[in-house]
Amino acid sequence: MTAEPLFQRLCLIGIGLIGSSIARVAQERGDIAKVVVACARTGATLDRVRDLGIADVVESDPAEAVKGADCVILCVPVGAYAGVMAQIAPHLEPGCILTDVGSTKGSVIRDLRPLLPAGVHLVPAHPMAGTEHSGPDAGFSTLFQGRYCIMTPPEGTDPAAIAKVRTLWERAGSMIETMDPITHDKVVAIVSHLPHLIAFTICGTADDLAQETREAVLKFAASGFRDFTRIASSDVDMWRDIFLNNREALLEMLARFTEDSQAMARAVRYGEAEFIEDRIRRGRKIRGGLIERKQA
Amino acid sequence: MTAEPLFQRLCLIGIGLIGSSIARVAQERGDIAKVVVACARTGATLDRVRDLGIADVVESDPAEAVKGADCVILCVPVGAYAGVMAQIAPHLEPGCILTDVGSTKGSVIRDLRPLLPAGVHLVPAHPMAGTEHSGPDAGFSTLFQGRYCIMTPPEGTDPAAIAKVRTLWERAGSMIETMDPITHDKVVAIVSHLPHLIAFTICGTADDLAQETREAVLKFAASGFRDFTRIASSDVDMWRDIFLNNREALLEMLARFTEDSQAMARAVRYGEAEFIEDRIRRGRKIRGGLIERKQA
Ligand SMILES: NC(=O)c1ccc[n+]([C@@H]2O[C@H](COP(=O)([O-])OP(=O)(O)OC[C@H]3O[C@@H](n4cnc5c(N)ncnc54)[C@H](OP(=O)(O)O)[C@@H]3O)[C@@H](O)[C@H]2O)c1
Ligand SMILES: NC(=O)c1ccc[n+]([C@@H]2O[C@H](COP(=O)([O-])OP(=O)(O)OC[C@H]3O[C@@H](n4cnc5c(N)ncnc54)[C@H](OP(=O)(O)O)[C@@H]3O)[C@@H](O)[C@H]2O)c1
Repeated sequence: MTAEPLFQRLCLIGIGLIGSSIARVAQERGDIAKVVVACARTGATLDRVRDLGIADVVESDPAEAVKGADCVILCVPVGAYAGVMAQIAPHLEPGCILTDVGSTKGSVIRDLRPLLPAGVHLVPAHPMAGTEHSGPDAGFSTLFQGRYCIMTPPEGTDPAAIAKVRTLWERAGSMIETMDPITHDKVVAIVSHLPHLIAFTICGTADDLAQETREAVLKFAASGFRDFTRIASSDVDMWRDIFLNNREALLEMLARFTEDSQAMARAVRYGEAEFIEDRIRRGRKIRGGLIERKQA
Repeated sequence: MTAEPLFQRLCLIGIGLIGSSIARVAQERGDIAKVVVACARTGATLDRVRDLGIADVVESDPAEAVKGADCVILCVPVGAYAGVMAQIAPHLEPGCILTDVGSTKGSVIRDLRPLLPAGVHLVPAHPMAGTEHSGPDAGFSTLFQGRYCIMTPPEGTDPAAIAKVRTLWERAGSMIETMDPITHDKVVAIVSHLPHLIAFTICGTADDLAQETREAVLKFAASGFRDFTRIASSDVDMWRDIFLNNREALLEMLARFTEDSQAMARAVRYGEAEFIEDRIRRGRKIRGGLIERKQA
């Protein structure tokens, strides 16, 4: 009943939340890859992956790991791409598909394309799914179900390679969207990166308050603050890399947001009730749009 | 089995989410008031309260409503306090307790004290409980259960009056904290008012984006943005009044937050990885504090 596996040998470089979720869905379905190779940086992660039994081959050297693979997925923080690519590029087989799951996409083209061997197909992708947890134990096979996956293939990419990556994500349960990397980076800057930056920042602001007020913040967090802290518990390396690799779009969105919040500040200072009401109404409108789309 | 009612005649001025929740808990328990009088501004709300049957007396004129009451609770937006007080002050009975549920507390003293008749006890309170819904249908009797209620009685207030308001909230299921109004306003500025201002603002920022990006924001909101929009769907009048009546504390917290977010922007621009990592770690630390206190 199981369809022919999409790939003969699928190599996952990085096997944390996202990588291990791909490994799990591949293992469960059987129609994604015949053999799954997992590669991580630390011995601890490699041991854990062996114990979990979620990969057929566990390999510490990325150069070894990619040998013979017809698909390689980078599942490491985006700041590690250039270093990983330098190690694996000489060992990628002609015809191999090189894809990834990174949260920024302009940086992927920038870091991978210069070293891309002839005959290797670069098909970047970003599964819009995740949690605030990380590591191989955090993954689960249904992570991508019903979530979007944004593909950003460069112009001129082999359509057959694009189709295979699309099928991979469809089999993982995702809906596919295609965008150019610049649009992708702008969209994720406002829907994800700026909210995270704000969440980290307001936690820091609270942490700097006088002892007494800080205690009270923890006590009364349920009044709104709490909603901001869930996303503030995410992985340090991953988010540092995202901020640094989506700099332009993130700074642009933050600048727009700051202008808007300063306009609110001014309205509060001068008692401009109508301006404030208009802003609140727009919040309700956006929320209404989400409810309509069942995304709320 | 039911204890002696705390009040003979309890008058609720304003009967939306909070007022109707008080009415419901009073009705359910029977030990809060012998008679509950509800007063609202519009005929539609008064009719609805009659249909719901959650008050013993429904009255459109605040001056009439407070007559003979030994406790009056203002449950209207804080911007309406001065106007309501001008109407009711001449009709408050000596010995009556005047309390409220407003989200700002400095403004309550400012707006109510000048008109307070001799012999009437002013005991402001703020139940830290709510939802993003409003109106008499939104209330429910368990709203205050397990939530904090902050009392801010002015110095010199009759201890017996304070004790009665405390018992009222304890019977509604709340834990009581006492603070001075200035501390209260600072704490709620950071835990509630600033998060709401940020949430309204980022929705506005998204709403101003080019059509294509705005569509994408709604589509991919699950990546973080969504967490910010729930609280952005709250009542317009109430939030306008809160912002305008907690101006100083809100502007101070917003200024601190803006400095901090600008420091983050600078770190992103100049690639200062360590600074960014430190900020992210502090977010995780605050989140950890909430989890420890079971407030997460
Ligand atoms: N988490 C999310 O919500 C989410 C959503 C969509 C996309 N993404 C993207 O998915 C990618 C992986 O994220 P994740 O959440 O799966 O992270 P994770 O759970 O922290 O796992 C990261 C993996 O990458 C390896 N790694 C970390 N730094 C490395 C380096 N400098 N060189 C080589 N390997 C390194 C780690 O190996 P060790 O364990 O041996 O250190 C680990 O196997 C990131 O690019 C992220 O932007 C994440
Ligand atoms: N919602 C929360 O999360 C929350 C939490 C804690 C404290 N509070 C505070 O509780 C108070 C009430 O909030 P709520 O959520 O219950 O609001 P709500 O559901 O919107 O109800 C407000 C009530 O006040 C009346 N009202 C509104 N404007 C008025 C005016 N200008 N003059 C006289 N009456 C007026 C309304 O009468 P009509 O229906 O006839 O217009 C309605 O009965 C506010 O001070 C708020 O700051 C709210």
